[in-house]
Amino acid sequence: MKQRWGRWGPDDEAGALNLIGPEQVRAATALVRSGRVVRLGLDLGPATVVPPHRKRVERLMSRDGGDYAAGARRPNGFQFAEEVWSFAAHSGTHIDALAHAWYDGHLYNGFPDTGTRSTTGARRCGAEKLTPIVTRGLLLDIAPSATLPASTAIGAADLIAAAERAGVEPRPGDVVLVRTGWLGSMGDDPVGYCDNEPGIDTRAARWLAEADVSAVGADNYAVEVQPAAPGQTFPVHQMLLRDCGIPLIENIVLDELASTGVAEFCFVAAPLPLIGGTAAPVCPLAIL
Amino acid sequence: MKQRWGRWGPDDEAGALNLIGPEQVRAATALVRSGRVVRLGLDLGPATVVPPHRKRVERLMSRDGGDYAAGARRPNGFQFAEEVWSFAAHSGTHIDALAHAWYDGHLYNGFPDTGTRSTTGARRCGAEKLTPIVTRGLLLDIAPSATLPASTAIGAADLIAAAERAGVEPRPGDVVLVRTGWLGSMGDDPVGYCDNEPGIDTRAARWLAEADVSAVGADNYAVEVQPAAPGQTFPVHQMLLRDCGIPLIENIVLDELASTGVAEFCFVAAPLPLIGGTAAPVCPLAIL
Amino acid sequence: MKQRWGRWGPDDEAGALNLIGPEQVRAATALVRSGRVVRLGLDLGPATVVPPHRKRVERLMSRDGGDYAAGARRPNGFQFAEEVWSFAAHSGTHIDALAHAWYDGHLYNGFPDTGTRSTTGARRCGAEKLTPIVTRGLLLDIAPSATLPASTAIGAADLIAAAERAGVEPRPGDVVLVRTGWLGSMGDDPVGYCDNEPGIDTRAARWLAEADVSAVGADNYAVEVQPAAPGQTFPVHQMLLRDCGIPLIENIVLDELASTGVAEFCFVAAPLPLIGGTAAPVCPLAIL
Amino acid sequence: MKQRWGRWGPDDEAGALNLIGPEQVRAATALVRSGRVVRLGLDLGPATVVPPHRKRVERLMSRDGGDYAAGARRPNGFQFAEEVWSFAAHSGTHIDALAHAWYDGHLYNGFPDTGTRSTTGARRCGAEKLTPIVTRGLLLDIAPSATLPASTAIGAADLIAAAERAGVEPRPGDVVLVRTGWLGSMGDDPVGYCDNEPGIDTRAARWLAEADVSAVGADNYAVEVQPAAPGQTFPVHQMLLRDCGIPLIENIVLDELASTGVAEFCFVAAPLPLIGGTAAPVCPLAIL
Repeated sequence: MKQRWGRWGPDDEAGALNLIGPEQVRAATALVRSGRVVRLGLDLGPATVVPPHRKRVERLMSRDGGDYAAGARRPNGFQFAEEVWSFAAHSGTHIDALAHAWYDGHLYNGFPDTGTRSTTGARRCGAEKLTPIVTRGLLLDIAPSATLPASTAIGAADLIAAAERAGVEPRPGDVVLVRTGWLGSMGDDPVGYCDNEPGIDTRAARWLAEADVSAVGADNYAVEVQPAAPGQTFPVHQMLLRDCGIPLIENIVLDELASTGVAEFCFVAAPLPLIGGTAAPVCPLAIL
Repeated sequence: MKQRWGRWGPDDEAGALNLIGPEQVRAATALVRSGRVVRLGLDLGPATVVPPHRKRVERLMSRDGGDYAAGARRPNGFQFAEEVWSFAAHSGTHIDALAHAWYDGHLYNGFPDTGTRSTTGARRCGAEKLTPIVTRGLLLDIAPSATLPASTAIGAADLIAAAERAGVEPRPGDVVLVRTGWLGSMGDDPVGYCDNEPGIDTRAARWLAEADVSAVGADNYAVEVQPAAPGQTFPVHQMLLRDCGIPLIENIVLDELASTGVAEFCFVAAPLPLIGGTAAPVCPLAIL
Repeated sequence: MKQRWGRWGPDDEAGALNLIGPEQVRAATALVRSGRVVRLGLDLGPATVVPPHRKRVERLMSRDGGDYAAGARRPNGFQFAEEVWSFAAHSGTHIDALAHAWYDGHLYNGFPDTGTRSTTGARRCGAEKLTPIVTRGLLLDIAPSATLPASTAIGAADLIAAAERAGVEPRPGDVVLVRTGWLGSMGDDPVGYCDNEPGIDTRAARWLAEADVSAVGADNYAVEVQPAAPGQTFPVHQMLLRDCGIPLIENIVLDELASTGVAEFCFVAAPLPLIGGTAAPVCPLAIL
Repeated sequence: MKQRWGRWGPDDEAGALNLIGPEQVRAATALVRSGRVVRLGLDLGPATVVPPHRKRVERLMSRDGGDYAAGARRPNGFQFAEEVWSFAAHSGTHIDALAHAWYDGHLYNGFPDTGTRSTTGARRCGAEKLTPIVTRGLLLDIAPSATLPASTAIGAADLIAAAERAGVEPRPGDVVLVRTGWLGSMGDDPVGYCDNEPGIDTRAARWLAEADVSAVGADNYAVEVQPAAPGQTFPVHQMLLRDCGIPLIENIVLDELASTGVAEFCFVAAPLPLIGGTAAPVCPLAIL
């Protein structure tokens, strides 16, 4: 894949999200028919699936109902509860910032990786640089009413076939959501889910990049097939995030959306603007 | 304010968000004119304003560019960065779940507060029960091009006057955003910002509840004026969250939106579905 | 076991540690012969064994050598590294505070359990109330050069036999360390280690309490045999911590000490004084 | 200061703690007279003084008495409380590991600083390499019954004068504790305490290193005077930790010890063996 660095200027940190402009927003909202809203984000809690090597989602109450049962003061009757959350940025449904993966020491658009450090996080291409996404969404359902077997590589032809079945064709600025069934069927098993997943291969990724999509999502933990071809490590991350500036949306929930039969919809995702983050938790929506 | 418990059944945990149905969604998206998207969420990082008693936002890298500079292995060239985030649920722009505040031992809709405990968080009315918000948003700018003085109580008459200036009137299901200017002018000072803020009083809150809005937001840290009237502690929280089931959106960024002159727009907010959480971080959008 | 509440006054929160006075300290230090110091604390890191339901030990660098490799500033040449640790209080080698376990709503010495809340931790019998331990230590090796099988109950007779083999007899104020071999042989397997461990039963616990020991340690994760007798849940915790005020030292490393053949030694443990904590990490020492 | 690298072999990571052998241990324990134990560690909790730029100590209950008041299950009567702690390694009374500070890209004994990374922490000279300290302790009270003014530089002559007043002289392997009074008088003010502290200067540090002490502690947050001489940044850290391999004990509590009038005592400190840590929390003891 030829790098698309410089396409939006030397200082650009939003990548393919630049393909979404007022025209795409208007076109997307014009797609709304029934007014049904489908939530595409996973519930996030201590039991949420995370790869075994990552921190689990942690919720710790700093004030709760038990404190009142035990006698806590209620000034003028007022009671409240609060808590602290702690999680790896790449937990649950999230969007990979362009700072997440790279090679040859340079992030998307040529920013040196030495800008990502302990005290600052990612000074370039961090999660706060991901602009809100309001655009046409396309659902490409590779395994209608089913689940792809582990390690199935989804190629460009599979995407094309799914698009034809759905009667849609990617346009610049679209978000393409690839349904594998994996999250729905394996999402309760952290070890199995985060291993040998079905997902897109590098040719499929290239086809999506050439279609000028603004982002790619999938109902698996890494969008791309695992394991990768021999001699490659997360090649789709390298190509889409670093070469093309195309963010990835991982662990997205697609089964309910697939069940509606609607393949083209208004897609909205407002990534949490975590300064210097390499990913942003998000609860994407499909508005039908 | 008469309690509205039971209005959507004895098991309801979404409260006034039930006022948003397909009709409201269609009407909201039909408001889109220019296609401009305004982000209403605060960037979230270690420097983000938080009340002095709360945990500051914490970002700690578990892998960064420095590790590669120091010689970390790059299997097949692949490099990546990741981090862990830890923050109080009520940090940055967030929506208070209905479980956040109450009195007399019962949350909205009568759920006993003993369901909110250390190990489970809020078993009732937690953040994951907040449905996605796609509805008409109204901006009521109380202090156009200015900032209200500290501790200014915004009454019902002030809301009505602002609505008249804007030529809008709240309808059932609307989200009403009240601009005080406080966040824009004081948001860099955690002590000053989180003390004596201008905000709505209980009569203003009652007026909003009677208009059947689905949620209320403001560019301050608690929506309501601080300090409250003598003998009261967070009375607007008690009334709106607990009696009426109306979520509050706090620390919302309204200055850019106000500068557009658009008072009526498509409002979208998809709260992060934190299981058992008392608040959800969110990046709301106004689509103009 | 008859409760020993009130023995050291109604406000006492140190329990059996009161049995250690200047006389015990002098006698303990007088035991030193060779000057060899044996560390009895586990190394603590992300790989340290913790029960599956607990948070794993987390270490996250806030400044490291990689940052300098990536170009961080070195004012006058100065470089440094720092990190944040996060762990469950009951991780690694730790001493259970008297606030850790109880029944009937009252902690040791009759303090109501409602004093242990979210905002304060344990207001009574917290880890900061554990006084430093400098006293005679006795090693009772139940399985010399071996490991007890899973779920082996160590009874009073086993303790007596081990003491006779070692030629020692517990005296008031002693710390008794019970070696099972479990940590040494199973400590790399978090699931196996934290399940069905060999340990003392309630009669052994009673014998120790009647001997007026100041604390009891073992090289397993709960001191007591798991599972407990039918109809009982952590009965040794209930008896020793709550009824008798005798702290428990868990996950203590005893194999090197056992290999010295020394059964009587100067034992030193200075629990980290975590305010309101239910346990304190500690690195106990045997000085031979 | 001439570097003392290689003195204990090219692989040594314990530095001056090697000066403590069986002979020093025997001599130290032989100093015990009264059997009084003085705790030199700060209580550690959310209110503990930390520099403003560092994370505050965080304690969050994962189970507490309130949960039972709210109805939590009590299997066979058993109740318990637990919590999670999170803090910067350099909080409260702690010992700086030799990996904490350096210059010219190399830690003590020449280990490259690139071994200290996000995923591993300090692979060389981490806190788990600090051997337990049982040795003679000397208290050099620079400001008897008083507090040194801010930014007072304690020179070698001041140390010598204090030693003469006390009738003691440092010997190889001793731990020297320097009392400034700063913690006792300023320790409640995080901003004032962590700024312009009185402490030793580089000549005093050199004098201590030449006396071959095993560690140096002080009742301030950095042992050394702040600010340092112009053109220098933490020069005592650079010299003692990196050149000489002498650990520093910071925020140590000395007022009670000073009040005893005992200047020579058995000192015991068992640093928590945090794998890869740059510091270890510790509760040191003086046994008189």
